[in-house]
Amino acid sequence: MTDAATNMRLKLPITCFILQIILIILFGAVVKYDHETDAKAWHNMTESGHSNYDNDFYYRYPSFQDVHVMIFVGFGFLMTFLQRYGFSSVGFNFVIAALALQWATLMQGFLHGLHGGKIEIGVESMINADFCTGSVLISFGAVLGKTSPVQLLIMAMFEVTLFAVNEFILLSALGAKDAGGSMTIHTFGAYFGLMVTRILYRPNLDKSKHKNSSVYHSDLFAMIGTLYLWMFWPSFNSAITAHGDDQHRTALNTYYSLAACTLSTYAMSSLTAHDGKLDMVHIQNAALAGGVAAGTAGEMMLTPFGSMIVGFLAGIISVLGFKYLSPILEEKLKIQDTCGVHNLHGMPGVLGAIVGAVTAALATRDIYGDGLKDVFPDVAKGDVEASFQGVRQAISLAVTLGIALLGGLIVGFILKLPVFGAPPDTLCFEDDVYWEVPGDEAGHEDQLTTVRTEESEKLNS
Amino acid sequence: MTDAATNMRLKLPITCFILQIILIILFGAVVKYDHETDAKAWHNMTESGHSNYDNDFYYRYPSFQDVHVMIFVGFGFLMTFLQRYGFSSVGFNFVIAALALQWATLMQGFLHGLHGGKIEIGVESMINADFCTGSVLISFGAVLGKTSPVQLLIMAMFEVTLFAVNEFILLSALGAKDAGGSMTIHTFGAYFGLMVTRILYRPNLDKSKHKNSSVYHSDLFAMIGTLYLWMFWPSFNSAITAHGDDQHRTALNTYYSLAACTLSTYAMSSLTAHDGKLDMVHIQNAALAGGVAAGTAGEMMLTPFGSMIVGFLAGIISVLGFKYLSPILEEKLKIQDTCGVHNLHGMPGVLGAIVGAVTAALATRDIYGDGLKDVFPDVAKGDVEASFQGVRQAISLAVTLGIALLGGLIVGFILKLPVFGAPPDTLCFEDDVYWEVPGDEAGHEDQLTTVRTEESEKLNS
Amino acid sequence: MTDAATNMRLKLPITCFILQIILIILFGAVVKYDHETDAKAWHNMTESGHSNYDNDFYYRYPSFQDVHVMIFVGFGFLMTFLQRYGFSSVGFNFVIAALALQWATLMQGFLHGLHGGKIEIGVESMINADFCTGSVLISFGAVLGKTSPVQLLIMAMFEVTLFAVNEFILLSALGAKDAGGSMTIHTFGAYFGLMVTRILYRPNLDKSKHKNSSVYHSDLFAMIGTLYLWMFWPSFNSAITAHGDDQHRTALNTYYSLAACTLSTYAMSSLTAHDGKLDMVHIQNAALAGGVAAGTAGEMMLTPFGSMIVGFLAGIISVLGFKYLSPILEEKLKIQDTCGVHNLHGMPGVLGAIVGAVTAALATRDIYGDGLKDVFPDVAKGDVEASFQGVRQAISLAVTLGIALLGGLIVGFILKLPVFGAPPDTLCFEDDVYWEVPGDEAGHEDQLTTVRTEESEKLNS
Repeated sequence: MTDAATNMRLKLPITCFILQIILIILFGAVVKYDHETDAKAWHNMTESGHSNYDNDFYYRYPSFQDVHVMIFVGFGFLMTFLQRYGFSSVGFNFVIAALALQWATLMQGFLHGLHGGKIEIGVESMINADFCTGSVLISFGAVLGKTSPVQLLIMAMFEVTLFAVNEFILLSALGAKDAGGSMTIHTFGAYFGLMVTRILYRPNLDKSKHKNSSVYHSDLFAMIGTLYLWMFWPSFNSAITAHGDDQHRTALNTYYSLAACTLSTYAMSSLTAHDGKLDMVHIQNAALAGGVAAGTAGEMMLTPFGSMIVGFLAGIISVLGFKYLSPILEEKLKIQDTCGVHNLHGMPGVLGAIVGAVTAALATRDIYGDGLKDVFPDVAKGDVEASFQGVRQAISLAVTLGIALLGGLIVGFILKLPVFGAPPDTLCFEDDVYWEVPGDEAGHEDQLTTVRTEESEKLNS
Repeated sequence: MTDAATNMRLKLPITCFILQIILIILFGAVVKYDHETDAKAWHNMTESGHSNYDNDFYYRYPSFQDVHVMIFVGFGFLMTFLQRYGFSSVGFNFVIAALALQWATLMQGFLHGLHGGKIEIGVESMINADFCTGSVLISFGAVLGKTSPVQLLIMAMFEVTLFAVNEFILLSALGAKDAGGSMTIHTFGAYFGLMVTRILYRPNLDKSKHKNSSVYHSDLFAMIGTLYLWMFWPSFNSAITAHGDDQHRTALNTYYSLAACTLSTYAMSSLTAHDGKLDMVHIQNAALAGGVAAGTAGEMMLTPFGSMIVGFLAGIISVLGFKYLSPILEEKLKIQDTCGVHNLHGMPGVLGAIVGAVTAALATRDIYGDGLKDVFPDVAKGDVEASFQGVRQAISLAVTLGIALLGGLIVGFILKLPVFGAPPDTLCFEDDVYWEVPGDEAGHEDQLTTVRTEESEKLNS
Repeated sequence: MTDAATNMRLKLPITCFILQIILIILFGAVVKYDHETDAKAWHNMTESGHSNYDNDFYYRYPSFQDVHVMIFVGFGFLMTFLQRYGFSSVGFNFVIAALALQWATLMQGFLHGLHGGKIEIGVESMINADFCTGSVLISFGAVLGKTSPVQLLIMAMFEVTLFAVNEFILLSALGAKDAGGSMTIHTFGAYFGLMVTRILYRPNLDKSKHKNSSVYHSDLFAMIGTLYLWMFWPSFNSAITAHGDDQHRTALNTYYSLAACTLSTYAMSSLTAHDGKLDMVHIQNAALAGGVAAGTAGEMMLTPFGSMIVGFLAGIISVLGFKYLSPILEEKLKIQDTCGVHNLHGMPGVLGAIVGAVTAALATRDIYGDGLKDVFPDVAKGDVEASFQGVRQAISLAVTLGIALLGGLIVGFILKLPVFGAPPDTLCFEDDVYWEVPGDEAGHEDQLTTVRTEESEKLNS
């Protein structure tokens, strides 16, 4: 079923080897342990009074592991809903992520500031690298089933770079806050991916239409992804906030936002079906929108009440998007968004950015006390008014949309070059193009054999 | 396959929306951050000498995440063993839990004590809300396959309320200890659910009998649930015990109880089968009984030796229950207990309560040292004798059984009202009633098509 | 399909009960809480100035839980790739591990030093017990599909004992370092298992050949195991290193080693296939070799650069092993290595040991500062030169290989005794020998029924 064009035997190894060897050389040249992972540096600190417990490892490593599960199992299995694309969903997710987290370490390290010409790394940089990787995997969701692994690795390299630039502009240049990444991760990843899939538009994709759907067990595998994303989202949003009340509050806000979102998702899924039956696509995706929408404001004094309203709205918007907007986007705008990332990451990300801007604009010292310096350091220092912090947040959303769309446009055209082994229209959503695929259940074949035998007997009788 | 009675298009959205909007309003009115999630309050504490590490987040959040996984993946996938009920098992588990944890926050917060008329929340209340949710999911296991989502949401609201009342009586009024919830969670959830399923008795359930069993892959999905419950049970039992040795010891006791339980489960499963073959039902369920049975005494000085005896017995009792008691309960008492919660949560919960009472009665300052004030504060203060603490524990078991059975009776009758869209006897254990269900494996259909084609050719030849 | 020889009705229960009762008695006789799990002892410490946070529980419990997931879900599901051996893979993994961790507690406790004639246990001993269990599960991978549960339990008892002896020689007698167990866990488990499977060689195993392969969904289940092993390997390698920079650095090194390994695995998998298609066997296994190979040097100042080179090489070696070496081992050396543990644990373990020896030999106080005493205490004290520490490491590898091969030889012959109910050659890789196995998908049977009906109609027309 593989022809020369999609044969990866040279393309994939060359891409992987070259990229990995470049990464190793660059790591050798510019990366070093930070003061908490370096034996000498840390022991100098403990001798000057720090306890081992002050090591950021103990503050952040449990959150990191949850984020790591979201990236590899959460995103990976969420995309296994397609009937014949499970190997690619999990497997390409795996290799893209393994590449992206290395490149992200370099790009983010370079832009977040060098130390004596070196990038210093530790658990916080590992979380940030995973976050950046998450953004790439969102874009992967938009083009799922229609790209070769080489295209995906190339996309990852470009997208990580642009992600780091956008993140730098938002957090460092503009002074915006976005701990859980409503803007930097979700909005960016979604609109970048949507633009890429727009450029890669396939007018004859309906030739693979029968494979662009789920089967019973593939939907159950996808629920593994959904649930891990849902359960660990509180860790995601709180992973790099300030220590103490900030991590604690962010986890709590996200927890209630997701709970409310789940109820509104079930309600809307049933309401929008003519026979009132729940749709797995909504449950798998829209129930997560509450985590996306709490990404910016989660660390702020959003209150549980505010968090629940945000989650409630996010679930409604997301189901409506899947039901009514996605078909329009595909038909009118030629955006073939396989996983519906616009509904899970795009619109809820924008909602989260707006909620963040409003919540920031309403911040006062009366509400935050001395905690203001953790959440809004510039406001606490008196450099800016809270209302201006809100404006910064809003500008950040606009910048993110701009860079994502423009970046996606350019990268889309690069990926369109006919050298990367993209699958033909007839073989989209099909593992067999790039994977050795075994047969199906032995049991069934036995049964089928039985059927055949019985028939033969009947026919011969 | 859906008729008007089971059409959820109005019932489910209305139920979800009304309940969620009430919850949002109540959260707005009475819920606030506690002193560890509130920016101002926590920073007042750090300025008066507390370190960020004193924030309870760092003591409990890793345990919380494990508990969270047990609730959503553990319970959810454990129930996917049914061949055509995987969507409902995972999906209803999801929405019930998302509702229950919100309502539990309010009910438990109200009964555990208001602060200036407000409920204060943080990681400990989140764990408690998840615990209460666990109890509802146990009851869900008893009625699995025979109820509509609306019935389940209604049941959750009532059960959470009664759970909070029972928990208040046990822990606050009676002064019992039950950190891992042998009584409050497992015994309560099991007997409540058993009574509900008794009231909802379906004499003609055998019309759906062929669907009330597993298939090969559904049993593997269920093992995902089993293993996550098993692995994280040490976190469950230790999640809200006192800091330090208490959390540490509880996790250790539970670890060894579960290990011993697993061996006795395998032994009994093989021993009770005429051909010595292991039964997945036992492995999936009975191997967990050691965690249930260590729920009360786990935080006490039970010793590893004691923990292993408890686990060993729990496994034996549980397998015997599945093999010999469940059929009797169904035939004689008309209790149709789909998941056998009586064997996993009911009897082991009672065993755990008894072990807890005995262990408490044997407590001495010589054994516990100053740790006595963490585990048995009233005994440490000299308010009561250890033997009386044992009596308190025994009374607590009786109270729990009483409230669970009476509560289940009343709630069962409410759920019997013919307005909630329960499935007909012929369509129990069937996702298709409430879900859009896709076809099965594409590969197979292809093969079947092949079969059909071959046959046609043969027939036409 | 079960005959008398493989009937487990007496053998399995007797084995489980006797072993478990012996374990309980021994635990009662010699095991007690350590000073951090004992109420009195810990409270004596807190009163003399320790904070609850100093309790090792908070330093290690999150790592322990990750390790626990690797043991039960990681190893268990990794082996579900076989089409009809999922119950046994997950289920035997479960019971072996539950036994092994108890026995390991005793063996390791006995050899690591008694306290007043007692073994003291806490979270660190739990991690060590899980580590030892991991080694047994690696050996299980070599004999997968060809052994009865009784054989496996017997093997576990012997292997745990030998593991503890080898570990004692390496860490205590020789003074080697091996925090993540490249030698003690991976090399030992692999070569022990390979020798056992050599002794149990089945010349007629090709009678079960058609079952010794995967089907579509079994490969997806296996990816659950792979990903949990991959994600949590940083926790595995860092779980028992010294607090502070050591845990932090080890996790970081492992993270980058695995990322680089994943890229080289994908490259090699595609490169070695004539049509360039990726092979799930490689992805599921070789991508993990980077974690194995970082097991010894991970805690050292390997640098991210060094870690990536190690991971990169490990992936290449592992894929080459699967592709070219395993067939030779099977044909020439009669080693039937079901899971290819030689490629995932054997060769990468040896690589890791060598990397550890070299890195140790290069250690200087200039690089490690005062951290030298954590990683190489004997070097820091001036008892030995760094170069001699390297020699110690190399000797440790040789000792490990010797004990593993000799131990596997002896245990292999014990397991060959024809009393343990091993499956016949025709029924290897088949759950049905030891498990009640349900049918396959209901949906399919319905469809098949339809086919049959249609045919009957056609035939009758």
